[in-house]
Amino acid sequence: MPSQGTKGKKRGYIVPVGGAENKKGDRPILVKFARLAGGADARLVVIPTASELDDTGDRYAEIFEDLQVEAVDVLQIEDREDAFKDEYLQILEGATGVFLTGGNQLRLSTILGGTPLAQLLRRLNADGVHIGGTSAGAAIIPEHMIAGGASGSTPRADGVILAPGLGLTNSVVIDQHFRQRDRIGRLLTAVSFNPFAIGIGLDEDTAAFIGPDNVFEVVGTGAATIIDPTHLDYSSMDSARPGEPVSLIGLKMHVLAEGGRYDINNRVAIAPKKEPVES
Amino acid sequence: MPSQGTKGKKRGYIVPVGGAENKKGDRPILVKFARLAGGADARLVVIPTASELDDTGDRYAEIFEDLQVEAVDVLQIEDREDAFKDEYLQILEGATGVFLTGGNQLRLSTILGGTPLAQLLRRLNADGVHIGGTSAGAAIIPEHMIAGGASGSTPRADGVILAPGLGLTNSVVIDQHFRQRDRIGRLLTAVSFNPFAIGIGLDEDTAAFIGPDNVFEVVGTGAATIIDPTHLDYSSMDSARPGEPVSLIGLKMHVLAEGGRYDINNRVAIAPKKEPVES
Repeated sequence: MPSQGTKGKKRGYIVPVGGAENKKGDRPILVKFARLAGGADARLVVIPTASELDDTGDRYAEIFEDLQVEAVDVLQIEDREDAFKDEYLQILEGATGVFLTGGNQLRLSTILGGTPLAQLLRRLNADGVHIGGTSAGAAIIPEHMIAGGASGSTPRADGVILAPGLGLTNSVVIDQHFRQRDRIGRLLTAVSFNPFAIGIGLDEDTAAFIGPDNVFEVVGTGAATIIDPTHLDYSSMDSARPGEPVSLIGLKMHVLAEGGRYDINNRVAIAPKKEPVES
Repeated sequence: MPSQGTKGKKRGYIVPVGGAENKKGDRPILVKFARLAGGADARLVVIPTASELDDTGDRYAEIFEDLQVEAVDVLQIEDREDAFKDEYLQILEGATGVFLTGGNQLRLSTILGGTPLAQLLRRLNADGVHIGGTSAGAAIIPEHMIAGGASGSTPRADGVILAPGLGLTNSVVIDQHFRQRDRIGRLLTAVSFNPFAIGIGLDEDTAAFIGPDNVFEVVGTGAATIIDPTHLDYSSMDSARPGEPVSLIGLKMHVLAEGGRYDINNRVAIAPKKEPVES
């Protein structure tokens, strides 16, 4: 369950990114995130824990500094002990936006899971701080995290590995590098275990800006694929053997490119505005 | 448009196979096809035109002979001239079942398209002869054939190459090697050009046995993924630029493993019977 937060405060945005977002050109996703967090008044915190590369945090810090936000701090959390440090918790308390980098989502969950830092992230988001993450940083955002699984189009009984995530929302399950790594089968498997959550598959350089009202807008050069299992009439998940395909009847599917929106609570897709093309 | 056929006669089965069907073990797809065509009374014709390998036709002939059908002929049609030969047309006239091998579907369409042999195939199927095909031989079955396209989960404006097929049915578009080559994006692109046809994505070793009533049953170890665009509320296909993802809102999707059925005319999926698993 997401943190209850302080009464009267609106949740911050939740911004999963499908990985490999534009970092050198006009960087629309990162620009929009910085603006959302306050623009010139934004105090951003980058958490590069998913990555084993030393410079991942600094790369994002440079980009955000370049966008002239007020402050950027990188919290170099490398083990569970780091995630208990008061110094880091204090810096985090002052943030208006937090960004989780890519890497390995199981590093994120094993290092942050159950620590004061994870609890603080949950409370901050519930109280209005915007939290974004790319690739592994996107996967860990929901209550149920896709930790691994096979690629391919067909759902299989053992096609996905789920693990507990950060739990900022339990309304969605998020997969990333979606088109590039052909992950629709594992997203279908994930939603068919228990069809209460919407599946969102994010292509690279594509983000869902999920507002406090649980309506999200798609930003970037790829698409968001939405699997809505609300009216799943039949699933063989309970009887399929490992490796076998799972039968699923009655899924709804939408593909939304930039400007498309989706209302998670009401399960309604809203089309992007068309730019007419004449030939 | 499919051939009208002789009044009072029922269409034969149409049997697209996703490629790489079991040929050495219990061969359930090929066994079912041979049985359908008459079992011990079946007179089968194999058309290996899609393949550039010399022995493709003979391999299938051996399998069908092994299944003790009455007769198997291989029509070694290698160029358009062959597809005009009376000798071949006469053999084909006597068939109870015809099987198109895999290879390159553009070889099939460029060699057979518009020839007396293609016309005869269409009339025979309309009059009750069963026609199956695997891989390229499956792709060419419908009116609109998927000739090529990129792999990946997201539909793109230029994500699929369509070409005229054999036209045994215009109710479906068929893609094959579906899971193995991650082709859901191009199937979505194909149905979104004009949402009148159902998209069927067949995994390897998986067949759809489409009956004369346009209800099909899934046979094999993979799944059939069905995209039903009937209630497509929005498509940006008319304004998406090459390479850009296409937004699609309101698709229905089903995944059917062995035993699952689908009623193409009424667009209803029917679940396979469950074998309960106790743990």
